[in-house]
Amino acid sequence: MERGIFTLNASLLAGASVVGYKEYEGPLGDRFDFYNDRKNDGDYFGQKSYEAAESEMQRMALGAVLDKTTLTQEQLDVMFAGDLQNQCTGAAYGLLSYPVPYFGLYGACSTMAEGLLLGAMTVSGGFARHCATVASSHNCSAERQYRTPLNYGGQRTPTAQWTVTGAAAFVVSEPRADRVRIVRGAVGITRDLGINDTNNMGAAMAPAAADTLCRFFRATDTQPSDYDVIVTGDLGTEGGAILCDLMRLERYELAPVYDDCGMRIYNNEAQDTHAGGSGCGCSAVVLAAHFLPLLQSGSIRRMLILGTGAMMSPDRIKQGENIPGIAHLLELVAPDAVPPENIR
Amino acid sequence: MERGIFTLNASLLAGASVVGYKEYEGPLGDRFDFYNDRKNDGDYFGQKSYEAAESEMQRMALGAVLDKTTLTQEQLDVMFAGDLQNQCTGAAYGLLSYPVPYFGLYGACSTMAEGLLLGAMTVSGGFARHCATVASSHNCSAERQYRTPLNYGGQRTPTAQWTVTGAAAFVVSEPRADRVRIVRGAVGITRDLGINDTNNMGAAMAPAAADTLCRFFRATDTQPSDYDVIVTGDLGTEGGAILCDLMRLERYELAPVYDDCGMRIYNNEAQDTHAGGSGCGCSAVVLAAHFLPLLQSGSIRRMLILGTGAMMSPDRIKQGENIPGIAHLLELVAPDAVPPENIR
Repeated sequence: MERGIFTLNASLLAGASVVGYKEYEGPLGDRFDFYNDRKNDGDYFGQKSYEAAESEMQRMALGAVLDKTTLTQEQLDVMFAGDLQNQCTGAAYGLLSYPVPYFGLYGACSTMAEGLLLGAMTVSGGFARHCATVASSHNCSAERQYRTPLNYGGQRTPTAQWTVTGAAAFVVSEPRADRVRIVRGAVGITRDLGINDTNNMGAAMAPAAADTLCRFFRATDTQPSDYDVIVTGDLGTEGGAILCDLMRLERYELAPVYDDCGMRIYNNEAQDTHAGGSGCGCSAVVLAAHFLPLLQSGSIRRMLILGTGAMMSPDRIKQGENIPGIAHLLELVAPDAVPPENIR
Repeated sequence: MERGIFTLNASLLAGASVVGYKEYEGPLGDRFDFYNDRKNDGDYFGQKSYEAAESEMQRMALGAVLDKTTLTQEQLDVMFAGDLQNQCTGAAYGLLSYPVPYFGLYGACSTMAEGLLLGAMTVSGGFARHCATVASSHNCSAERQYRTPLNYGGQRTPTAQWTVTGAAAFVVSEPRADRVRIVRGAVGITRDLGINDTNNMGAAMAPAAADTLCRFFRATDTQPSDYDVIVTGDLGTEGGAILCDLMRLERYELAPVYDDCGMRIYNNEAQDTHAGGSGCGCSAVVLAAHFLPLLQSGSIRRMLILGTGAMMSPDRIKQGENIPGIAHLLELVAPDAVPPENIR
């Protein structure tokens, strides 16, 4: 077995999503569990700051997923959570009202996949019956932290992506015959191929996604055509094209099954979101609201999802450093699909 | 079993530490593996910024622990790492030269314990033979990020602590009869008791440490006198006294076995470090250089270590919020000590 690639035995019991107005306006708008339906009100979710709004979204998402599963917070053994805010306070503050044993994560935009992977490992290893995993981003808290003040009004480049205002929570549990299962996972390796343009996150993350995919295909003796869908978190149009090119160099043809949460969430042309959505919340809410229901119903039977993260720091960029990327992978199968048995 | 409290079956194969000049001048100075021996040179470790210096310390620490174990990076299945820098770049950039599957963590100053706990779970669950865990802090990168510019020269209050310049790396492996074992662990719950003084981290973290300890004692039916040492990461003199008081209210007398890495690392009076050391690096380097050798030699036979973290954000503090705390616990035993068998 290649290191960092695991057989897992857990179910994805449910997911819940909370998004802002722009995401509600997008093509998946009516599938999210909660959304802000008021235009131009800043997506404050009743809070006094964007940072607190993001925390509130995490709180709402966890509450919503508990409602769906009819679990109480006392039945959650552990939770894994993170976000993009400095010192990860979106999660730390947002989940304070749930006194559940807490692992804080930082995987940039790969955080949702990182949490699901660790949750599935925790359940598969026998350490928990039920884990929660929560991830979020807020356009306003992220943009003013990573790029420029919100009212600066800088021109956005064609490769720039739009940070999603959204949070999603999932419950990962012991295997259940009637739910989507997490059957394999791959831990990402941080890769730095020299990208230092903070408006081209897709290019920074694509090499890491290619690396994880190639390692996974080799270890499991599978190929793209074995999956109904292979979806990345937030490579967008730019990063997605680079990923398909990189995979072609390794003799894998990804295009027929390739999808990207960042390309799904907005109507890029009409909503002026350039290369697509990004942020921890992007893959989290699109998995919860779009792909998970398709898996649950059997419309998709076997899928790979890669959380893609750009380990970017505005300070380190100013100090002349690059933007390393990382990508964690999960293999999800429909309730009645036959699980793979060829590793471990 | 109480949730988030696990029986573990892993060994702590080795630890390695790298520190700055002030730490080298302290009472444990000659026990660290690498140190900067030049006073007033800023602890740059040959880099151009404090942030890059912290990354370099992580790189050195991981290299050093691999040397000690005679493992190669290819034999590491997974690594867990984190630090205090915004976007956790101390770890993300520092470990780039080790292409090992990577889980990024943010647990504030509890990161080392969080990593060891997840590492021990990963090994105990059969997902890895060898995991690395790395954590760091740098006084200069932390102070200018969390408090004030370095040359501002603000007066420090008596409860203030001194962020340790240091990094440590550990290898967690399958059980070995001749090494220190990790036999139990407890995942912390985030606790907010209303502290909002950024110069009193000890008070913010003490309630979380008390909570984890009480949950652990109840779940395992043990008490402080069952352990040779119970050590916290960086509560310092202020937080340590509060913890002992809080535990007394719960009828546990901690004082006879209580110790704190933050109280060990400096000579507070002579080095003007006020309430003691703090930071991710504090508990990491003191465990690697002081407690782990004592356990390995059998001078300490059974010990609890709690990584204590203040989930503090300068922005959220300015927005009027408090500082929640968290504490993750590990039970470590000497190579020939009988492991406990009363949970799971």
